[in-house]
Amino acid sequence: MYSFNELALKFNEYFDKRHFPESPQNLYDPAQYILQIGGKRVRPVCVLMGNELFDEIDPDAYHVATAIELFHNFSLIHDDIMDKAPLRRGVQTVHSKYGESTALLAGDVMMVQAYDSLNQIKPLHLQTILYHFNKSAKEVCEGQQLDMDFEQRSNVSMEEYVNMVTLKTSVLLAGSMQVGAILGGAGEGNQQHLYNFGKNLGIAFQVQDDYLDAFGDPEKFGKQLGGDILSNKKTFLLIQALDIATATQKNELELLLSSSPEDKVGRVLQIFRDCKIDQWATELKERYFHDALQNLDDVAVLSSRKKELRELAEYLLQRES
Amino acid sequence: MYSFNELALKFNEYFDKRHFPESPQNLYDPAQYILQIGGKRVRPVCVLMGNELFDEIDPDAYHVATAIELFHNFSLIHDDIMDKAPLRRGVQTVHSKYGESTALLAGDVMMVQAYDSLNQIKPLHLQTILYHFNKSAKEVCEGQQLDMDFEQRSNVSMEEYVNMVTLKTSVLLAGSMQVGAILGGAGEGNQQHLYNFGKNLGIAFQVQDDYLDAFGDPEKFGKQLGGDILSNKKTFLLIQALDIATATQKNELELLLSSSPEDKVGRVLQIFRDCKIDQWATELKERYFHDALQNLDDVAVLSSRKKELRELAEYLLQRES
Repeated sequence: MYSFNELALKFNEYFDKRHFPESPQNLYDPAQYILQIGGKRVRPVCVLMGNELFDEIDPDAYHVATAIELFHNFSLIHDDIMDKAPLRRGVQTVHSKYGESTALLAGDVMMVQAYDSLNQIKPLHLQTILYHFNKSAKEVCEGQQLDMDFEQRSNVSMEEYVNMVTLKTSVLLAGSMQVGAILGGAGEGNQQHLYNFGKNLGIAFQVQDDYLDAFGDPEKFGKQLGGDILSNKKTFLLIQALDIATATQKNELELLLSSSPEDKVGRVLQIFRDCKIDQWATELKERYFHDALQNLDDVAVLSSRKKELRELAEYLLQRES
Repeated sequence: MYSFNELALKFNEYFDKRHFPESPQNLYDPAQYILQIGGKRVRPVCVLMGNELFDEIDPDAYHVATAIELFHNFSLIHDDIMDKAPLRRGVQTVHSKYGESTALLAGDVMMVQAYDSLNQIKPLHLQTILYHFNKSAKEVCEGQQLDMDFEQRSNVSMEEYVNMVTLKTSVLLAGSMQVGAILGGAGEGNQQHLYNFGKNLGIAFQVQDDYLDAFGDPEKFGKQLGGDILSNKKTFLLIQALDIATATQKNELELLLSSSPEDKVGRVLQIFRDCKIDQWATELKERYFHDALQNLDDVAVLSSRKKELRELAEYLLQRES
């Protein structure tokens, strides 16, 4: 059994190539560009880990992992267009480097390429894996739309937010593990447990992401602290705060949301602290983490095979274990 | 055997439904919107006709036809964003009605839905049909990119233009016929002949489209006459004119391309006529039409089975015979 880091190395070795023809250069260079920016390759490695949980790694798992990583990058290109984001991982986004039309089209062709990778696998599992891939792909689009919808709304409930996060972030992680498991011959029960493991892990990860944006260590956190607060982004923290704040706190919070005073971040953080949102978020993350581990426990394979996935969960959630 | 019109009726009956879930409404209503604008449904009917050429229509042909029509509509949504087109078939384009971000995402989810339709077919042909579908899909993206590239260039050769048109327009028509043929059990030779039939038909159709934009009957032609000339679009006509014009004519043409005098359309048309471009284009269309019919002749099935496809070619190319 391989650790996450070992599999990431193996996957990168496999994935680090030109995935597209040379021409038309204006279409395929931008597509290749985003792949070379890199990233942790969490999702494709989850395919491999989900696969190895049940059996030795099937060579087809690399095709499916490639498809998932291509799909993920397609969604990044298009999300960046929608979010008008100038940078990703510190370098220019595809649309800011090559223009929106080209970025749009490069995303499109990358999605087709993802399906082409899927189509390299042996026929036995093709239909099932296509089914789950399509399901996750549609859900990712739904999550992105809900995220955009929420920007226009002030009254997003915690349930709606968890649903959006699940669709936008978790299902691709969960689906990655599941398709790996399918290739490994897992039964439906085990597939479902592993899927839920990925789903809860993904939600815990988003809780952590929201938490770090507000309460992270500025030295370790890559992005600007308080960025979510400045952009009035609905987060676990804000939704919970609006839910449990006193009338006075809620009034101040809503006033801050509708204006941009210089000390906005500090004042919102103070309300968060007064409402013990930091502690609440830490507990919420732990709860999802705990649920995830329970899901992993429920998978009917030898406990010793699960070590690497447990470590992955701890790694993603920055726990010392 | 059914005629094009009969099959269009049958397909519309099958296709005329909501293809998406109700929610998120802001994602799926825009996707459904473009499907309801309608269209001739040429490509999906070509799947059915390619299929019926070899056998009774396989129910799976409707799934594949649906996939192709969804893919085509996805490409229309995204092309309209890139072209900043306000109208399609006389009504608002998706992005002008719902905004660019939503249109982008609605296109994305429609492409996934296309693959979901493909995945409804029996496993026997899934891998082969996915292969051809992906090939055409990538080529359509390549064609769109080349079309955008050409806007920035003054020296597009006829060979390059035919290649672009083939990718952007013809391969989806050709591929539609081929996947239908595959479902009908056609051998590779017959598939290829039918593919070439669709390809040549598509190019002939584009020659006609370019011709009609310049020389069409204003009463019958839906769009503004001379639109291509006003927007300096590379067309069969312009490329040929630049190729064969005298030095004086070429100078005037290039002057007209770099300016926008009020009588631009009339003056360009006069050069086209002086160079006998109208006659040349009519002959070029006839040549591709003839090649297409030759491809159809080469398909090794009873000649009587080909009647409807011959009629389709005549219908698309507005020939009376």
